[in-house]
Amino acid sequence: MITTDICIIGAGPVGLFAVFEAGLLKMRCHLIDALPQIGGQLSEIYPHKPIYDIPGYPSITAQELIDNQLKQIEPFHPTFSLGERVDALQKQDDGSYIVLGSEGTQIHCQVVVIAGGLGCFEPRKPEILNLENYEGKQVHYMVRDPERFRDQRIVIAGGGDSALDWTIFLSDVAKEVTLVHRSDSFRGAPDSAEKVYHLAQEGKINLLLSHNLQSLNGNGHMESISLINKNKEAIQLDTDHFIPLYGLSPKLGPIADWGLQIDKNAIEVNTFDYSTNIERIFAIGDINTYPGKLKLILCGYHEAALMAQSAFRYVYPDQKLSFKYTTVNGVNAF
Amino acid sequence: MITTDICIIGAGPVGLFAVFEAGLLKMRCHLIDALPQIGGQLSEIYPHKPIYDIPGYPSITAQELIDNQLKQIEPFHPTFSLGERVDALQKQDDGSYIVLGSEGTQIHCQVVVIAGGLGCFEPRKPEILNLENYEGKQVHYMVRDPERFRDQRIVIAGGGDSALDWTIFLSDVAKEVTLVHRSDSFRGAPDSAEKVYHLAQEGKINLLLSHNLQSLNGNGHMESISLINKNKEAIQLDTDHFIPLYGLSPKLGPIADWGLQIDKNAIEVNTFDYSTNIERIFAIGDINTYPGKLKLILCGYHEAALMAQSAFRYVYPDQKLSFKYTTVNGVNAF
Ligand SMILES: Cc1cc2nc3c(=O)[nH]c(=O)nc-3n(C[C@H](O)[C@H](O)[C@H](O)COP(=O)(O)OP(=O)(O)OC[C@H]3O[C@@H](n4cnc5c(N)ncnc54)[C@H](O)[C@@H]3O)c2cc1C
Ligand SMILES: Cc1cc2nc3c(=O)[nH]c(=O)nc-3n(C[C@H](O)[C@H](O)[C@H](O)COP(=O)(O)OP(=O)(O)OC[C@H]3O[C@@H](n4cnc5c(N)ncnc54)[C@H](O)[C@@H]3O)c2cc1C
Repeated sequence: MITTDICIIGAGPVGLFAVFEAGLLKMRCHLIDALPQIGGQLSEIYPHKPIYDIPGYPSITAQELIDNQLKQIEPFHPTFSLGERVDALQKQDDGSYIVLGSEGTQIHCQVVVIAGGLGCFEPRKPEILNLENYEGKQVHYMVRDPERFRDQRIVIAGGGDSALDWTIFLSDVAKEVTLVHRSDSFRGAPDSAEKVYHLAQEGKINLLLSHNLQSLNGNGHMESISLINKNKEAIQLDTDHFIPLYGLSPKLGPIADWGLQIDKNAIEVNTFDYSTNIERIFAIGDINTYPGKLKLILCGYHEAALMAQSAFRYVYPDQKLSFKYTTVNGVNAF
Repeated sequence: MITTDICIIGAGPVGLFAVFEAGLLKMRCHLIDALPQIGGQLSEIYPHKPIYDIPGYPSITAQELIDNQLKQIEPFHPTFSLGERVDALQKQDDGSYIVLGSEGTQIHCQVVVIAGGLGCFEPRKPEILNLENYEGKQVHYMVRDPERFRDQRIVIAGGGDSALDWTIFLSDVAKEVTLVHRSDSFRGAPDSAEKVYHLAQEGKINLLLSHNLQSLNGNGHMESISLINKNKEAIQLDTDHFIPLYGLSPKLGPIADWGLQIDKNAIEVNTFDYSTNIERIFAIGDINTYPGKLKLILCGYHEAALMAQSAFRYVYPDQKLSFKYTTVNGVNAF
């Protein structure tokens, strides 16, 4: 059991800034995120895009912003559980909560802050026969641990950045990599596509363009994948793992079942402190809604600041909060 | 008469960011500030102090933040009237406003945004006889234009940074500079103090420590200043100008008389769009108040974003506002 002051669900830019604002008030945070990496939408969807409306940055790429925010919260030593969805919250008799993760992690905390963005990113699944039979065993919608595929035969499917990037990366790890794509050109970054063509020419990977998925074959254990090429000819590939990387789409997911007031997939909060209808549970960033709400990163920062002021009374019920500017003593004084 | 979409009163960090958010919605801004420079409290009070709670900046000095914000709003070509206090707002028959500055500037606009911080900085005045007789003529509480003192005899009074900095700067401009300070050590930066001692040793300035001000002497035109040293001996200095630099303290000032709902020196707003009780007048940043208000720079940024969405309908009454991420097309697309 992990014990912390505040458990933050979602390690996007807003969850990260909440660590800072909590830290100024001497509250410690643990973050839990369903994605295998920190950074929310910014790192998952548009890491290399420049953002122009972060105040004080004429331009900054999404990943740089996340990296800077990580540096900013270093003094407060946040801890993380990644690749783990929060499925449920258990209220304790003393008002505190235990947060239950999908991989068995349990976090005991005084306050829950939901910074879940648009919700959990769920994989877009390909249409292929018998997919469900092998999910969680030989079918992987995300590469959590590349070592898992060392010296194995794998088939990756997709035409975007993650299909290209993982093909390149795993070509050095796996025994045999096949990349299958239904079209004859890629949507991903041109230089990643270039590298993939190059690996195929060198014989380091097996590239199948204009091929459609048909079925996964086996008997309890998957042994091969059937495909059809553009001349309608059937092909069979022997493989140990199938990794369809067709992108992720966000779903509110388990959060919808926690008794929170929900309006159009967002949690209703009041703008005094971004608290929800349930005591000790706050919601900040893209996941919340209130009159005038804008789904902007800079708005989530403000929400995090006001939330922290109010969360303080649950963590330090006997102390009076005193408001200080960071300029006065620096971060280490807090 | 200057014509613009939005007139922003106050060129601090929040007023500056309002230019950006307005710009994204194709609204142009004119800013007016009583101080001679841009940057509000940050440039006036603590330009060299590092701030730690600007999201995405582990540390940034106040002046750097202002400089970056100016770069960020360049694409929207804001215009400025500096060194001019806003004294009154005149409502026009069509709902628009004319903003009246203390130096005679008139700004016609559809929307007024008050980003006035803690109000106008008013000089702290020294206790000295006949001060009022020469204010605005030979007594100056701020150095707006150093050239004004070329080849003149000046007496500067004070022991903080601005007294030291202007003494150093004007020692190259004026014919004769005397710095008078009531104590025998300075409050300002040690290396500025070092420079001042050095200038005194070289005979480039006249340094009078542990001296108290007594009176300004003259008959309509000031001719000299009387002082007393620590042995209670009287001294008389002939001079053309007296520049007391004892710091500035903010006063809500004229804003208090515009019919706005005021609570403890701040303007009451609603958090939907940071509008005041008067239509077309918004208040953002340190100058406003609402339940949960924190006087933080990052909160003002959020307020500016929501304000702009709402101000849009006064500037473009027939258009529908569409919300776009800056990442999609960059700033120039707006
Ligand atoms: C292409 C694109 C361009 C954009 N451009 C801009 C822009 O220019 N400016 C701007 O301000 N905004 C922009 N945005 C929006 C911006 O990305 C969001 O406002 C921001 O990501 C919100 O941050 P957040 O921390 O609230 O949530 P997110 O970044 O969405 O992070 C939420 C995290 O919570 C996790 N999560 C959700 N539910 C659970 C659960 N049950 N268990 C565990 N983890 C969970 C998710 O995995 C996710 O990592 C853009 C968005 C996109 C997609
Ligand atoms: C020493 C110090 C340290 C601080 N540290 C931090 C920190 O670490 N983090 C943080 O977030 N905040 C900090 N703050 C607070 C921060 O400076 C303010 O929140 C911020 O300046 C508010 O910005 P603003 O744009 O609303 O107003 P201001 O910066 O106050 O600017 C308002 C401007 O409006 C002008 N004005 C007012 N009335 C009129 C009028 N009638 N006509 C013309 N002009 C007018 C003023 O001249 C002024 O320039 C600190 C403040 C101080 C003094």
